[in-house]
Amino acid sequence: MPINAPKDCPLCFPEQEIVLWHDASCRVIRVSDADYPGYCRLIWKDHVSEMSDLTPAEQRHCFNILMAVEVAVRECFRPDKINLASFGNVVPHLHWHVIPRYLDDLHYPQPIWAQAQRKSRGSPAPEVDDARLALAVRNAIAEQIAG
Amino acid sequence: MPINAPKDCPLCFPEQEIVLWHDASCRVIRVSDADYPGYCRLIWKDHVSEMSDLTPAEQRHCFNILMAVEVAVRECFRPDKINLASFGNVVPHLHWHVIPRYLDDLHYPQPIWAQAQRKSRGSPAPEVDDARLALAVRNAIAEQIAG
Repeated sequence: MPINAPKDCPLCFPEQEIVLWHDASCRVIRVSDADYPGYCRLIWKDHVSEMSDLTPAEQRHCFNILMAVEVAVRECFRPDKINLASFGNVVPHLHWHVIPRYLDDLHYPQPIWAQAQRKSRGSPAPEVDDARLALAVRNAIAEQIAG
Repeated sequence: MPINAPKDCPLCFPEQEIVLWHDASCRVIRVSDADYPGYCRLIWKDHVSEMSDLTPAEQRHCFNILMAVEVAVRECFRPDKINLASFGNVVPHLHWHVIPRYLDDLHYPQPIWAQAQRKSRGSPAPEVDDARLALAVRNAIAEQIAG
């Protein structure tokens, strides 16, 4: 059970998630988005709002996991660019977006929250199943934490 | 001189910048944006594209500075939320956006790259001059690096 969990927080009480990896402090999920099939999200377990609300050790852990997810997403999806973002304006529960981007994806070169730049024709990302992505995340986390 | 600097990179060869702090590896600037006067940017010195292109020590340093900027921006601007993002789709030179957000700012609760949600009536952020912001950044960096 997350600390300080409001009953209506969808990240404290998720319904359907593809969890690729988790530990006692956070989890990594794959976002269901047909335009961005490589889109992953790192969700802190406790209901805290900002990175700087974490302790220094928690911050380091969170960034280590974030970097590992970036490495795994690059390895699996070979994107032209990685986008990282932590907003929390709608759901003020700390989470990070990790999005592989391609020159011909729906919004490029804009962030995916901006207006679409072209018509959706399916994603240019290679197909990668959940099991392979989960393995890449797990391996990258092991390497990041060992380093 | 940044490593691997393309002649046309505006972050390798900046024109006008309000530099709040810098060291040998990166700088923190204040972005000139009337709607977001507390908007700061952390720019890595060398022309690298992704966080995971940095060495582990460089990653830690970059995240330490990012966290310190977040702390300084929270202290100076008392926002409702902090937004952090690293895209680089337009300029593939590693940089982080640190944006203090308010419930009644131009785009809330959307990211600032999305469609405006209301008419611009000036920012709800308190007025903070460059010198005070620079001091807050410097102090927060000293504390972050000591911790």
